[in-house]
Amino acid sequence: MSEVGIRAAELADAAVAGDRRALARLLTAVENRTAIAEAALRRLYPSTGRAHLVGITGAPGAGKSTLVAALIAEARLVGRAVAVVAVDPSSPITGGALLGDRVRMQAYASDDGVFIRSMASRGHAGGLAATSTSAATVLDAAGFDLVLLETVGTGQSEVEVAATADTTVVLEAPDMGDEVQAIKAGLLEVADIVVVNKGDRPGAQRTAAQLRAMLTVTASPRLATASPRVASAARDQAADKPRPKRPEVLITTATTGEGVPALLAALDRHRAAGRDGLAAAARLARAEAQVWAIVSERLRGRFHGAAAGPATESTLRAVAEHRLDPYTAADRLLESLTGGRSPA
Amino acid sequence: MSEVGIRAAELADAAVAGDRRALARLLTAVENRTAIAEAALRRLYPSTGRAHLVGITGAPGAGKSTLVAALIAEARLVGRAVAVVAVDPSSPITGGALLGDRVRMQAYASDDGVFIRSMASRGHAGGLAATSTSAATVLDAAGFDLVLLETVGTGQSEVEVAATADTTVVLEAPDMGDEVQAIKAGLLEVADIVVVNKGDRPGAQRTAAQLRAMLTVTASPRLATASPRVASAARDQAADKPRPKRPEVLITTATTGEGVPALLAALDRHRAAGRDGLAAAARLARAEAQVWAIVSERLRGRFHGAAAGPATESTLRAVAEHRLDPYTAADRLLESLTGGRSPA
Repeated sequence: MSEVGIRAAELADAAVAGDRRALARLLTAVENRTAIAEAALRRLYPSTGRAHLVGITGAPGAGKSTLVAALIAEARLVGRAVAVVAVDPSSPITGGALLGDRVRMQAYASDDGVFIRSMASRGHAGGLAATSTSAATVLDAAGFDLVLLETVGTGQSEVEVAATADTTVVLEAPDMGDEVQAIKAGLLEVADIVVVNKGDRPGAQRTAAQLRAMLTVTASPRLATASPRVASAARDQAADKPRPKRPEVLITTATTGEGVPALLAALDRHRAAGRDGLAAAARLARAEAQVWAIVSERLRGRFHGAAAGPATESTLRAVAEHRLDPYTAADRLLESLTGGRSPA
Repeated sequence: MSEVGIRAAELADAAVAGDRRALARLLTAVENRTAIAEAALRRLYPSTGRAHLVGITGAPGAGKSTLVAALIAEARLVGRAVAVVAVDPSSPITGGALLGDRVRMQAYASDDGVFIRSMASRGHAGGLAATSTSAATVLDAAGFDLVLLETVGTGQSEVEVAATADTTVVLEAPDMGDEVQAIKAGLLEVADIVVVNKGDRPGAQRTAAQLRAMLTVTASPRLATASPRVASAARDQAADKPRPKRPEVLITTATTGEGVPALLAALDRHRAAGRDGLAAAARLARAEAQVWAIVSERLRGRFHGAAAGPATESTLRAVAEHRLDPYTAADRLLESLTGGRSPA
């Protein structure tokens, strides 16, 4: 086995054996997309697929972090190991999130059943969903029953991240402004469960009623991002299965924990129901996204790498000097990249 | 010539001839990445490279739109044709920006020397920078001397967009909060010119002084996003040329127009100075980004397309069912995509 392979195996096995320092180091490797992370993920992947991956997203101010803390507490009460990956793709400032984590971690410093980790943005988008999926794979292998992907914002990348989960929870607060109303529309498309938090506020019931009215039966959110081929394969697979239900709308008050046991139960119900064809389709779509992210990154590396050679540079120079249009250049480089196969 | 080719040629020629409706339709095609857009860009590209492409970014509330309006007015005074592409990658709500444009357009309804256009996010990131670059190419071909790329937010995509310009202007307001201070750091990396707007506010001079102190000599911002190969080629090319200067820091009051003529002059100075090696390097880096965006989209299409075939689907299914890890799957699909060439 290669040096990298050996170190990856040691790190992976230690993380799986419960060594939290090894787990943290492995997650850093995943975040930085190192060769060690890849080798470790290759090793761990076959033994994963047990954890329930839950995406939690929603407009800022809806109380995501507080709800996540309440979910951790509730899950611990019933003896389940919980890991949280807090994803903040847009902000150049991760210090805040990290600090928040340290504070949250304090409460569980001596509890091996809780692990919280922040991930900042790395490189091109799409990469973020791939990285958080890989992080979830590692935490799954490390034996966490429940892995929460908490996204900070409501941008496209966050929605992508939330959509990689088995169950996607969209958080709302009562009577948010017009802008948030507009944001809702996009977010609700990926919701398996909608939570109106801050349930002790006036208007919580009305907001929940409005949301129930807005929500129509939707296909699995993951299909929205799947390729036509996978989406149709998914539908075939799901054809003889019960149609997906309209997303449940729950009300919680994270600060007091009210409604949180019901949310945990709803998560379990969705996962149980999710053993049908659409859930399999969602997993297929997620696999496609994961694999494409890796393929794309490798092709990018080849394109940018020395392998592309001087021919590439002179072609790019011709484009820069407007002697050649970028499409003709792309066709040429595509051929050199793909060994003579011209694009369909 | 194909049907698409003929229609693209008609649309492109009409847009270049000054038909604003044709121009708008062509920009819509560019935004939607249609075959007509591609054919039109192939046709137009060789005749472009004349316009000065200026990226304008900065924290929300710094007054970007007002400054852009002031720049338009000033440029018109000296008889230059100005086009604006307002880019809003993150928000699911583009109505606001579009409405803002209509309002701004009113003032120039009868002026063929001004064209303003909003672009929302489309598809995966990186794609946005590619789309706005293509839009700029069209506007360049349509004869606009100055093309302003105004980005709405300060996320990674916006910085990427701003960095595709010949000259990147980063806007600040006096004494913005800590968060904005932190955002500055990331933004300033791509700044060729820094503008402290709202110069009539107390603290404008102090903010400008702080910024001058913060700013150190930087390489051309575009190199930050370039591949190592292009970046080094760029440095070689620039080696015998004067080093880039520390970004200029100017103070404007967009609402009164104060300082705007000086900004326009600074833009011209930067462009003139930019005829050195680093500017050529920046153009090379931009070409690389453009071409890679096209290559990547085509490979993605092939990967998702039926061309990938049932072998792809069964491989993805194996990953979804955790029988195969995504990296091994990626290696296999990469081979099928690239005709047997295994990754380096």
